[in-house]
Amino acid sequence: MPPAPADRYRRVALVGRYASPGIAGPLSRIASFVAGRGHSVVLDAETARSAPLPGCPVAPPGALGDAADVVIVVGGDGTMLAAARELARFDVPLIGVNQGRLGFLTDIPLAKMEEMLGPILAGQHVEERRTLLETTVHRAADGPAETALALNEVVVNRGTSGGMIDTAVEIDGRHVFAMRADGVIIATPTGSTAYALSAQGPIVDPQVPALLLVPVAPHALTNRPIAIGDTATIRVTLLRGFDAWAHCDGHAHFQLSEGDSVAIRRSAHAVRLLHPEGHDHFAMLREKLHWSETPESVRP
Amino acid sequence: MPPAPADRYRRVALVGRYASPGIAGPLSRIASFVAGRGHSVVLDAETARSAPLPGCPVAPPGALGDAADVVIVVGGDGTMLAAARELARFDVPLIGVNQGRLGFLTDIPLAKMEEMLGPILAGQHVEERRTLLETTVHRAADGPAETALALNEVVVNRGTSGGMIDTAVEIDGRHVFAMRADGVIIATPTGSTAYALSAQGPIVDPQVPALLLVPVAPHALTNRPIAIGDTATIRVTLLRGFDAWAHCDGHAHFQLSEGDSVAIRRSAHAVRLLHPEGHDHFAMLREKLHWSETPESVRP
Amino acid sequence: MPPAPADRYRRVALVGRYASPGIAGPLSRIASFVAGRGHSVVLDAETARSAPLPGCPVAPPGALGDAADVVIVVGGDGTMLAAARELARFDVPLIGVNQGRLGFLTDIPLAKMEEMLGPILAGQHVEERRTLLETTVHRAADGPAETALALNEVVVNRGTSGGMIDTAVEIDGRHVFAMRADGVIIATPTGSTAYALSAQGPIVDPQVPALLLVPVAPHALTNRPIAIGDTATIRVTLLRGFDAWAHCDGHAHFQLSEGDSVAIRRSAHAVRLLHPEGHDHFAMLREKLHWSETPESVRP
Amino acid sequence: MPPAPADRYRRVALVGRYASPGIAGPLSRIASFVAGRGHSVVLDAETARSAPLPGCPVAPPGALGDAADVVIVVGGDGTMLAAARELARFDVPLIGVNQGRLGFLTDIPLAKMEEMLGPILAGQHVEERRTLLETTVHRAADGPAETALALNEVVVNRGTSGGMIDTAVEIDGRHVFAMRADGVIIATPTGSTAYALSAQGPIVDPQVPALLLVPVAPHALTNRPIAIGDTATIRVTLLRGFDAWAHCDGHAHFQLSEGDSVAIRRSAHAVRLLHPEGHDHFAMLREKLHWSETPESVRP
Repeated sequence: MPPAPADRYRRVALVGRYASPGIAGPLSRIASFVAGRGHSVVLDAETARSAPLPGCPVAPPGALGDAADVVIVVGGDGTMLAAARELARFDVPLIGVNQGRLGFLTDIPLAKMEEMLGPILAGQHVEERRTLLETTVHRAADGPAETALALNEVVVNRGTSGGMIDTAVEIDGRHVFAMRADGVIIATPTGSTAYALSAQGPIVDPQVPALLLVPVAPHALTNRPIAIGDTATIRVTLLRGFDAWAHCDGHAHFQLSEGDSVAIRRSAHAVRLLHPEGHDHFAMLREKLHWSETPESVRP
Repeated sequence: MPPAPADRYRRVALVGRYASPGIAGPLSRIASFVAGRGHSVVLDAETARSAPLPGCPVAPPGALGDAADVVIVVGGDGTMLAAARELARFDVPLIGVNQGRLGFLTDIPLAKMEEMLGPILAGQHVEERRTLLETTVHRAADGPAETALALNEVVVNRGTSGGMIDTAVEIDGRHVFAMRADGVIIATPTGSTAYALSAQGPIVDPQVPALLLVPVAPHALTNRPIAIGDTATIRVTLLRGFDAWAHCDGHAHFQLSEGDSVAIRRSAHAVRLLHPEGHDHFAMLREKLHWSETPESVRP
Repeated sequence: MPPAPADRYRRVALVGRYASPGIAGPLSRIASFVAGRGHSVVLDAETARSAPLPGCPVAPPGALGDAADVVIVVGGDGTMLAAARELARFDVPLIGVNQGRLGFLTDIPLAKMEEMLGPILAGQHVEERRTLLETTVHRAADGPAETALALNEVVVNRGTSGGMIDTAVEIDGRHVFAMRADGVIIATPTGSTAYALSAQGPIVDPQVPALLLVPVAPHALTNRPIAIGDTATIRVTLLRGFDAWAHCDGHAHFQLSEGDSVAIRRSAHAVRLLHPEGHDHFAMLREKLHWSETPESVRP
Repeated sequence: MPPAPADRYRRVALVGRYASPGIAGPLSRIASFVAGRGHSVVLDAETARSAPLPGCPVAPPGALGDAADVVIVVGGDGTMLAAARELARFDVPLIGVNQGRLGFLTDIPLAKMEEMLGPILAGQHVEERRTLLETTVHRAADGPAETALALNEVVVNRGTSGGMIDTAVEIDGRHVFAMRADGVIIATPTGSTAYALSAQGPIVDPQVPALLLVPVAPHALTNRPIAIGDTATIRVTLLRGFDAWAHCDGHAHFQLSEGDSVAIRRSAHAVRLLHPEGHDHFAMLREKLHWSETPESVRP
């Protein structure tokens, strides 16, 4: 007799890395495990296209969030970013399973899936809320505003031309500075360990209610990373630059003309992540960034 | 007939840069202005030693905070740091007047004192609360714990020896990392534009409830600035280093032995700063850091 | 009676900022001054299109280098970069006159033109040789190699896509590292104060025979700027990235496909710059970078 | 019958990490191997105090450089730094054997000692010359000048006080800038991967004839690392700071008073290092800095 299903997470959805047939094996293994514990299982429609699971129902496109009490995302951080943006409005919690190496967002190794997923699905877990950014592109010329979500960051930067762009940055309607640079990153704490880190930004604990403004290769040496409260609306206006773009998590791309502006604010929806009990954000950072446990370790 | 005193700020205290006879003129000018508006004026005892104001009563040492409804601090940021630490426990608001060049904390130029102080004392102002750090040094050997306050930062670093020190950093009792470096800075948002900025830390808006951990010249290239929530207790333990120190705002200094640790947490008291209405933190940063208004400005 | 022409610099050519009609006035003023001292004057053909000088002969396109003993370049650093690349093969010395603000390469202010140009044309000057880079793009697919010159830097970087590119870097045929980043800059000492500086590269004195490899926003935190000898051949191969480019001084642009490589080596030609006697490279840097004369100066 | 001794390196000296009894085993193993190949072996006097080798003659203090044709240094980079400074004036080549993990300077693992030392002692090797710095401290008050050597770097920095120091930097008698900072590092290419790297300095190939000036935590954000030619004399004068020091490789320490200055120039002697044939400086850096061979490797 299988264990009684956790009432809380009766319906479990599975999402896998898109267009990755190799994901079928891991998904199948997880589906069996979850079903064996008495949960119902439903598969993401897009995932099913490249990795169908025989006997497993598929949620209609766009309906996964309503069809599940919890979603298990299998892949890397990129898969989790996509799923998180897609599902945020449903307020459904997410669990990240990585297929090989530890991710910043996918912290359960496939090899330990059974022992770690079990307790989580039984309700023994830590829940974390991650800020999501809502981006609106306003055109200087007539034209409708366009929007997109980002969990890591919004970047306004130059395109193929070798030249820097000039942008003006406003916070809550107040001018902060004009900057010449390759670009500027507006990152969440989640994104602080992604592109923003490469551009000299600080690491921000996900519990800090802040957004980062991080210049990329700024012309002026005094333009430095800035952390501001996450209730602010940030507006980046393209002053000069004939080939400039806005990118949201590297998935949505908007070409910008002079005078166009990009408004970024915290979304009303947050991403809910479930971690095993005892989850330690800094232990994960320590492993990912090769920080020393003890100072016997040497020059990096 | 002088204007009626603002009931709220009936008693005004004055603090000047210590051991600076040149402060007497500015203090006298401010005292006249304030008294002329019907406030009572009292002078800080320490200030009075080098810059007595004839006819102006002096508060007994340690009693200034109780003797005043608001304190005007005249000097530079260092004077304000000292006054803020001294007066924080009295919950009395502070106004900063600089004698020459704009300070991060002393934003009213002496030259515009009359036009800017008047409205503030009449209650037309913006109030800002700044986080203060409480530091406790715990000795590995027997010995009493020692404490000090800091408004900018606590630094644990090497002394005269040329060698790096090894420290372990814990947050709320959890080990974060061990680090070999010249030192580590734990900074408030206020301190983010001071020493931490020189060590590659980000600028943090004072409204963000965060503390910074900024390594100084870390041996490992992956040790980067980190922002964490300001309710955390940070503990830095000296693992190895025969000549190490803890400094609080550069005013209190503790020599450390191996095994000693420094615990840093947000003080129960905050520093209350009064600014003119329309105060713009980023305008101040723009001026201090030479940020561009417009990108016509060139390479820094 | 005019002064006897300096035999050494009998023929003086003038080059102005292209497509800038406002350059006509300064050019005319310089032409009169130079002719008045007994030199013959010839105008660059391209410059003459937007700023013709009545009565002044124009050199045929491509023949300026042979038609002159010295070239005066009027404009900003961009104008000098273009002229230097164009004229390097003629081994003719260049003098830079700026129209407003001091340039890294154009160090004679128009306002002081007469007093500073006179002695230089009379042979009282300091000559400096600047390394020029020769870039060859080798295609993985069949196709001819393409070449371009750069005085500041060659950049291999991502295009409009938000994604980083993967490159492999070889020095003299030896693999150095593979890197994921926005891009990599190969800069001359001249270029060390341009884009490379924005990407955290060091300032390199023009007399140091070195080239810089500076990563732009590298994924790995241990990828740091590197200085190598300037006799090396550096090869950057695009490993992965569907939208990547090579840029030479921002004037020549090559789209790259996976497997394409960019070989960079010191050109056989150097750029010859003439400065006033007593020229001080660090005095120029001090002014451009706002370095302190004395430490009374404040935070940055 | 033992192999004929290599004429070139007939006399081999051994130096081990000082005050490290554990070095006796490795030294003994190396002595046997070297003697077995027909070389004569002599032991450093200081090494012999903690790790005497029965039957092995000991060179009188200070005479090792004259008593050997080549010196094998066993330990870590610190041991090599000390031996190199000590022996530089004898112009004798050095071979570095590390006891555990790869050093920047000690590149032969003890485990592979036999197979790698053999060919080197037979004359099959690559020789590299490393620049050494000669430091002279000039006192503002009367007093003799003091000198010391450094292979990595000379640092002028603050001592136990928390405060920054003000220094003026001159190159060949020309004022470059005044700087407020924790300190300033003058590094050789060898030292570019040591302390200077922690302070954001670039990596400099040992073949580049340059010295680095690297500020440590500079107050002004525009003070950046600078590379200058290695024939320059650099002078750092203490303008202000009541507790400042000069350190040479962390072994020689000079307390400085205001007005004291430290002159640094390339020593007439260079350090000669012998490496196995095929030695690859970048392969060593790749391993020490965890650079990617291929970009499959992830975030640092």
